[in-house]
Amino acid sequence: MKNIQVGIIGGAGYTAGELIRLLLNHPNTELNFVYSTSNAGNKLSYVHQDLVGATELTFTDTVNPDVDVVFLCLGHGNSVRFLKENTLSETTKIIDLGNDFRLTADRNFNGKTFVYGLPELNKHAIEKARYIANPGCFATAIQLGVLPLAYAGLLKNDVHVNAVTGATGAGTSLSSTTHFTWRDNNVSVYKAFTHQHLGEINQSVNQLQTDFKSDILFIPNRGNFSRGIFATLYTDFEGTLEEAQKLYESFYEAAKFTFISQENLHLKQVVNTNKCLIHLHKYQGKILITSIIDNLLKGASGQAVQNMNLMFGLEETTGLHLKASYF
Amino acid sequence: MKNIQVGIIGGAGYTAGELIRLLLNHPNTELNFVYSTSNAGNKLSYVHQDLVGATELTFTDTVNPDVDVVFLCLGHGNSVRFLKENTLSETTKIIDLGNDFRLTADRNFNGKTFVYGLPELNKHAIEKARYIANPGCFATAIQLGVLPLAYAGLLKNDVHVNAVTGATGAGTSLSSTTHFTWRDNNVSVYKAFTHQHLGEINQSVNQLQTDFKSDILFIPNRGNFSRGIFATLYTDFEGTLEEAQKLYESFYEAAKFTFISQENLHLKQVVNTNKCLIHLHKYQGKILITSIIDNLLKGASGQAVQNMNLMFGLEETTGLHLKASYF
Amino acid sequence: MKNIQVGIIGGAGYTAGELIRLLLNHPNTELNFVYSTSNAGNKLSYVHQDLVGATELTFTDTVNPDVDVVFLCLGHGNSVRFLKENTLSETTKIIDLGNDFRLTADRNFNGKTFVYGLPELNKHAIEKARYIANPGCFATAIQLGVLPLAYAGLLKNDVHVNAVTGATGAGTSLSSTTHFTWRDNNVSVYKAFTHQHLGEINQSVNQLQTDFKSDILFIPNRGNFSRGIFATLYTDFEGTLEEAQKLYESFYEAAKFTFISQENLHLKQVVNTNKCLIHLHKYQGKILITSIIDNLLKGASGQAVQNMNLMFGLEETTGLHLKASYF
Amino acid sequence: MKNIQVGIIGGAGYTAGELIRLLLNHPNTELNFVYSTSNAGNKLSYVHQDLVGATELTFTDTVNPDVDVVFLCLGHGNSVRFLKENTLSETTKIIDLGNDFRLTADRNFNGKTFVYGLPELNKHAIEKARYIANPGCFATAIQLGVLPLAYAGLLKNDVHVNAVTGATGAGTSLSSTTHFTWRDNNVSVYKAFTHQHLGEINQSVNQLQTDFKSDILFIPNRGNFSRGIFATLYTDFEGTLEEAQKLYESFYEAAKFTFISQENLHLKQVVNTNKCLIHLHKYQGKILITSIIDNLLKGASGQAVQNMNLMFGLEETTGLHLKASYF
Repeated sequence: MKNIQVGIIGGAGYTAGELIRLLLNHPNTELNFVYSTSNAGNKLSYVHQDLVGATELTFTDTVNPDVDVVFLCLGHGNSVRFLKENTLSETTKIIDLGNDFRLTADRNFNGKTFVYGLPELNKHAIEKARYIANPGCFATAIQLGVLPLAYAGLLKNDVHVNAVTGATGAGTSLSSTTHFTWRDNNVSVYKAFTHQHLGEINQSVNQLQTDFKSDILFIPNRGNFSRGIFATLYTDFEGTLEEAQKLYESFYEAAKFTFISQENLHLKQVVNTNKCLIHLHKYQGKILITSIIDNLLKGASGQAVQNMNLMFGLEETTGLHLKASYF
Repeated sequence: MKNIQVGIIGGAGYTAGELIRLLLNHPNTELNFVYSTSNAGNKLSYVHQDLVGATELTFTDTVNPDVDVVFLCLGHGNSVRFLKENTLSETTKIIDLGNDFRLTADRNFNGKTFVYGLPELNKHAIEKARYIANPGCFATAIQLGVLPLAYAGLLKNDVHVNAVTGATGAGTSLSSTTHFTWRDNNVSVYKAFTHQHLGEINQSVNQLQTDFKSDILFIPNRGNFSRGIFATLYTDFEGTLEEAQKLYESFYEAAKFTFISQENLHLKQVVNTNKCLIHLHKYQGKILITSIIDNLLKGASGQAVQNMNLMFGLEETTGLHLKASYF
Repeated sequence: MKNIQVGIIGGAGYTAGELIRLLLNHPNTELNFVYSTSNAGNKLSYVHQDLVGATELTFTDTVNPDVDVVFLCLGHGNSVRFLKENTLSETTKIIDLGNDFRLTADRNFNGKTFVYGLPELNKHAIEKARYIANPGCFATAIQLGVLPLAYAGLLKNDVHVNAVTGATGAGTSLSSTTHFTWRDNNVSVYKAFTHQHLGEINQSVNQLQTDFKSDILFIPNRGNFSRGIFATLYTDFEGTLEEAQKLYESFYEAAKFTFISQENLHLKQVVNTNKCLIHLHKYQGKILITSIIDNLLKGASGQAVQNMNLMFGLEETTGLHLKASYF
Repeated sequence: MKNIQVGIIGGAGYTAGELIRLLLNHPNTELNFVYSTSNAGNKLSYVHQDLVGATELTFTDTVNPDVDVVFLCLGHGNSVRFLKENTLSETTKIIDLGNDFRLTADRNFNGKTFVYGLPELNKHAIEKARYIANPGCFATAIQLGVLPLAYAGLLKNDVHVNAVTGATGAGTSLSSTTHFTWRDNNVSVYKAFTHQHLGEINQSVNQLQTDFKSDILFIPNRGNFSRGIFATLYTDFEGTLEEAQKLYESFYEAAKFTFISQENLHLKQVVNTNKCLIHLHKYQGKILITSIIDNLLKGASGQAVQNMNLMFGLEETTGLHLKASYF
């Protein structure tokens, strides 16, 4: 197959860096351009410094509108602006890693219809889509934890979610809470009950269980590590642990990156992979679900490549057999 | 005042190390002996290596039964065994840092009656006590977060608690989950819903609000840091944020180490201090309480010294004006 | 090409874990068996927990003597013992990751001759070798930093080396210096001037510059991170920076994984890659060389796969295009 | 004794924060004012957030010129500017934590003569001084490691120094190398051979050994921890280890915070203390000296208080019996 020509918009951030790392090793893609006005002319390796020796490519401030697919790695709100100010060819596919098109109310933009790109939920629609709204990182971990219950219509009450994210979740900009001396050996909570990813989570839950009217109560935390999301969810569940496991195994039977673990989980099992691992635990009338991902891979750039593979008819896992860093 | 003669039993662990550090600088105590059979004859600084230059004292395998107070820093279950095998003088006070005497059912032992040593709850009883059961670390953080509501009889429903502890919470013994390569940049959950501190927490809540029949649902986590506990709790609360703040301010009016913060909290505000900081946040019908402590100080050895001060009629804060490490 | 049948001996350690991760994604190999007596019957993912979902293979306590290549991932000294107690087929190649066969005095064993497997030094010998002694981790970083100068005969005086290694360098066994509470935010020095890798370093330097009679003065440090080696070396150098850069660029012209960076380096540029990055700095009569690797990849398992590729006539980089974890 | 009235200039940085923490617990001082134009009116605890519950003091933009002592915690170069723009009373003592007055060429300023405030070197001069130039953090660790040899006239050749500092050494300002995602699990080198502290180090060495003409070759590193400096130094030494130990013990006999350890050192032995620990090791013709301090205490604010104690005739250790954080 002829190589897919790829453009990346907003090439200096963390998600763009991960995309570049993935696509340089992807057997069916060619990095046609990486757009970053602030770094135009600099080598990619000047910003993404692990790329020394891996590529001589430079950033550009010119968009090639005729590539096969464009990834938008822009701050939230900036994808809309970019698409207003730039015209891409009719056949260019778009995968937006921001949150501009994730909610139903935002999906139709300028004649384009965006499909919510969670393969475990919308695989067939993604295969036929031209425009993808890639899910948020917390949203991915939490949805993959809760969707099987919604699918079975078993969400009867509030879902209590606590999740902690690595510092890359906050982006490359400098702030007091990303300063090393602040964050080293520290923990804190933010946006309790109101994190912006709740919108897409509730939307997907309702897509599967239309009568779900309870709350998803979500406490997000900042962790003192760089990569990954560790989420725990619990809710009422009357069935047995075995029934829950069967339900989850069945729901994820065709999933290429989401697996049920019989053992307790710890975050580093998924760091530097595109996997989501899920563990189930039953205690009295509650089920506890642990769901873990790498926020930059399954939570962002890895899932974006997974979506690209589906859109172009490639094997879903192409270029995503990553060696975990583990330690 | 003549110096209080102190004995420490089980001197090689983390809580004993903190006690030694505290008591070496306490103006009214003298370390009479530090008992550790495995280290007898070694300098304290051989095990607690920050003490180089601070003391020439050595561990002993002989118990002096006539000291004024003995701190038991033994693994859970071993305090009972120690007191069966060793006889202390009638006037020797005992502060047990283990969990052998915390529950009502365990409080009377061999003619001794232990008082649960949470000063914010039982100050007057502690002042008159001869035997103290020092609270657990998670138990301290969670109780200080929830007791004002119980006091006001306002716990109407389940309390949802998530807390993360530093690696010192697991003690000095080596295990796979305390190995650096495992824990570095990692997170995990353990003993979900069944942590042993729930017993003492429920007991104190019921002491203040006898009609509390709901559940305290507690998810403990292992964090990738050494010291501290960061706990978030939420439950239904119909009042306003101001009412909650007034209630907490009032409940802790006389407390010497527990303070209400108007700002969001982060763990390092309390590391290397004996403080508990609490922050309140209201969202719709819920109140979110953040409660943070240093697990080795307010969660163990600092609180033990606080109890000693009260038992001996000293100013409660003596020897506990600690410089935070903060970074 | 028919898949190379691979056996791994000592499958539960860090280097074996990395080998398994690499070989599961290598296009030309098949994991024939992973030998670990203590884990026989367990899934690989029971020990290497990132492999959940990636393989169902189990450990075995039976050695298949007819595989194409065996990797020995044993504690130092145990490779000799293993080869005495087990007979492999005449055609089975062996790559030893321990230090049993690295020194000239040890290279001939039981009719086998081991080649020192540093591709930048011995590429042609490796291509023809049946038995490889894979270099040590510190030895790799330091040699790649100093060999170009030796090659040019320019080592005129002592070489001063300081290097810091991640905790995986100490292996999986538990010890006080690998306990999280000890190592978190800590640094220490060990084996100053006497580290066991000095033998192989001096041997390679003398292979290129036979008149080198000065000392390599090496201070190894334990760092509070999991992966990687950061080494600085300096020595007298009369030439210009440009001459040094030209020398290094030329020496590594054919190298597939060793690159000269014009910018200052930081360790994470190479973490989770098989690369060695080198930076040169001139100050008055000294040259300062920074050399960085991932201790488990270029310093162990990645280099072992690189050697395997060379021995089997594969492209040297096969299976080693790894996505850096970077953060 | 009447309390010493203290003013702090530049109150929002790390060293000012440490000073405030120390002085709030110092029995003989009263914080008269903390000057910070950018934070005027804010509580101290708004910036130094561990102070919640410890003080209600606020920052001011007014300097009280009549306090007993002023600490200057300003960026390098700004102390001169501050003293030009502000007039303090004739009797107000000054302790400058910057590097404006450390070198002999800079010591006389505007009628004031600054004494270099390293108590182990200049105790008597400090006791009589009105103006103190507080040493740099690296400079303190390295001088305390090397001065006994200089005192004995035994520095015969180059001194090779490698030291790593925590992120607080870089100050509170945000930069790429203080971003958590960059620094977490990372190491790097900077200012090799040219660090600005070499000036004061060489000056003190020459004060004790006037014929020292060799080089102090210093490689500074950025470590992935918050507090502390870990320095190793080696040089030629013909005597025995015992002779070296006797020399160091003798040189530091009267020192209150500098101790010789018979055991190997690790950084956390001094974190959150005002101590310097030194370990000596002999190998062939070299002596290896390990010297460790907390960069914010013995390397800055703790030493400043030590100097204040000496200047005001207080016991040198007053207010500096700090509980180590250790873990």
